[in-house]
Amino acid sequence: MPTNFTPTRDASRTLAAMTPEDINAVLLDLADATEVAIAALLAANSRDLGRMDTASPMYDRLMLTEARLRAIAADLRHVAALPSPLGRELKHTILPNGLELTRVSVPFGVIGIIFEARPNVCFDCFALCLKAGSACVLKGGSDARESCEAIMDLIHDVLRRHGLPEATAMLLTSHEATAELLNAHGDIDVIIPRGSSRLINFVRENARVPVIETGAGVVNTYFDAEGDLDKGRAIVCNAKTRRVSVCNALDCLIVNRSRLGDLAALVSPMEAHHVIIFADDEAYDALDGRYPYLQHAAPEHFGTEFMDYKLALRTVGDLDEALAHIRRYGSGHSEAIITENAGAARRFLAETDAACVYHNAPTSFTDGAQFGLGAEIGISTQKLHARGPMALEEITTYKWLIRGNGQTRP
Amino acid sequence: MPTNFTPTRDASRTLAAMTPEDINAVLLDLADATEVAIAALLAANSRDLGRMDTASPMYDRLMLTEARLRAIAADLRHVAALPSPLGRELKHTILPNGLELTRVSVPFGVIGIIFEARPNVCFDCFALCLKAGSACVLKGGSDARESCEAIMDLIHDVLRRHGLPEATAMLLTSHEATAELLNAHGDIDVIIPRGSSRLINFVRENARVPVIETGAGVVNTYFDAEGDLDKGRAIVCNAKTRRVSVCNALDCLIVNRSRLGDLAALVSPMEAHHVIIFADDEAYDALDGRYPYLQHAAPEHFGTEFMDYKLALRTVGDLDEALAHIRRYGSGHSEAIITENAGAARRFLAETDAACVYHNAPTSFTDGAQFGLGAEIGISTQKLHARGPMALEEITTYKWLIRGNGQTRP
Repeated sequence: MPTNFTPTRDASRTLAAMTPEDINAVLLDLADATEVAIAALLAANSRDLGRMDTASPMYDRLMLTEARLRAIAADLRHVAALPSPLGRELKHTILPNGLELTRVSVPFGVIGIIFEARPNVCFDCFALCLKAGSACVLKGGSDARESCEAIMDLIHDVLRRHGLPEATAMLLTSHEATAELLNAHGDIDVIIPRGSSRLINFVRENARVPVIETGAGVVNTYFDAEGDLDKGRAIVCNAKTRRVSVCNALDCLIVNRSRLGDLAALVSPMEAHHVIIFADDEAYDALDGRYPYLQHAAPEHFGTEFMDYKLALRTVGDLDEALAHIRRYGSGHSEAIITENAGAARRFLAETDAACVYHNAPTSFTDGAQFGLGAEIGISTQKLHARGPMALEEITTYKWLIRGNGQTRP
Repeated sequence: MPTNFTPTRDASRTLAAMTPEDINAVLLDLADATEVAIAALLAANSRDLGRMDTASPMYDRLMLTEARLRAIAADLRHVAALPSPLGRELKHTILPNGLELTRVSVPFGVIGIIFEARPNVCFDCFALCLKAGSACVLKGGSDARESCEAIMDLIHDVLRRHGLPEATAMLLTSHEATAELLNAHGDIDVIIPRGSSRLINFVRENARVPVIETGAGVVNTYFDAEGDLDKGRAIVCNAKTRRVSVCNALDCLIVNRSRLGDLAALVSPMEAHHVIIFADDEAYDALDGRYPYLQHAAPEHFGTEFMDYKLALRTVGDLDEALAHIRRYGSGHSEAIITENAGAARRFLAETDAACVYHNAPTSFTDGAQFGLGAEIGISTQKLHARGPMALEEITTYKWLIRGNGQTRP
């Protein structure tokens, strides 16, 4: 039987009539309910964990703990405390004929989100969509199925208590339903895939509904001829090692040939983190015997999102070569330059085509909360609608309200 | 041989480095060159016209005249005079750690536009894309091929004179090239189809590149129980007859049952325009013998974009029924209510999910220039990125610039 998205579309209209206070009450109630349900949620999660190899890198992502669930409850309360993104007056004009035009932020309606094995995404996405006035259709990885179902039961309980339809949040569990979601033009307003580039490519290839691509980040940092060594040491190590499993983590350090003499000092803070460096020939020679975890780069190391304590290292002659490397291998997520030369910084900021372009700061700052935007639903790597961290404002749309008094157009 | 979009991508980088003044100089030069080339452009156009049936509704759209070309030159000068949409500071924050964040408007890069038989679209789209700092790839209908090629030769001459690559504006002429355009993920940043819903559906079904859907407008206006008859007469006639071939033209008048007694007076101004009304049974009975061009509505008349002197007419019992009709048949373009009841107006504006929602004004105002946005490239009927009239600001994207001094993230 084909999936019926009509109840969710209908629920989105109920949401559109809610006040921000009513929405916040649901979020606060869900936070309380989550803390009450910790044992039940952990039991469901342990059944999912029982089917997974403990050595899998997915194991930790799949795992819920009491501490994680309490952090989720705190996040829900935080989202409730954020200002509503709805009803903002984005433009306002009164035309010479007296017609009053207002561009006002409104909910999308129904947002589809496809993610992998992290069950906490159910909470995050439901909360952000609700706060932004939209219903949501979630499809999680099958590894997390029991966890997601338990979370969804909890969400449905809370929705019912507030007189809201369960279809305000819908969980899909089959591949067939996912295909229907991708093709539900008219019922689903936008789809946000969160996860690996394989997932994102699949969604892009198959969706008829508008998509916002997120995540996949091949991130580069260029240490310029005039880069400050102390700043560079701190920035490169922070960008690589702060958290290797996130999309803003550094994947390739590009170094100006004239600074190969400083390279060992530049990368030395990463030794404590056992970062493996895949260096091109020149950089390899500069580091040989001076950095313990050194290997020769293979071509495929450039353009790889490592998600690990691994770093590609490329030598270039000048800023133009660095920019060309980024054009070729970057994914348009986050790119940085380390330099004291104002002209080089200006060129890098102007010419780098990416969501977030840094001067003398690490790409680890690419994050909605760090940017002061509040909680984020993902980091867009495309140019349509939202670019970079997508927080509540970025998951709304707008409409024009035109108020007249019988004017006509000549 | 597959189409190579790399030169256009490269050209977009050249454009990104141009000043607004340099861009305006190209537009002004193209305006002059267009006036000089009138004879050559008309000759090419007459060859296209010679292959088309003069009775076709496309004939007039295909036709260029000296007056139209002079109007195009004036439009180019107008676009040159508009403020640049680039380099606007959209957000600016300094974080407690001293990191300076700026969200700034930047060009998309390469914009693809697929249109039908109107050769003037070549000028419009090239001019708006250039002003917004983007290169463009244009695919026009094959009926307009010689006209488009002649226009493109002119554009290329002007680009060369300004030291810009011809690939700044690329014309595709084959179906194969169109398929490549729709799949050129990474080379093309966004595709805007302009034309019939058949074209738009084709693009949505086949594109792997982000698309902004435009145009197709099934437009409704609701005459409420408390609608003012004088305002209603002016608004309905203006919305229907001002220009029937544009997407903001009225397609269905929805009338409150309690006002059937006023219906003949409400629609009478359309008699002079020979508007054919397809009325449901109740409305038919109310107009029978009182309006000359009256027919019974068939189910397919609701939800039809007529593009003609034709109007569907539907009777409803209350505002809820009117809203339900719009949800079912509207295309999310422009919808209007005529009422003196503030509560009904408020509900209609809040609950109607469309790009432009009117109270006591005709939908014929849905237009970028009328909204004070300057020239428009289309009217978006989707919710992603831009909704309603898309002018220069709406065909830019943004990026985040982050300026630091060696800060790291804890």
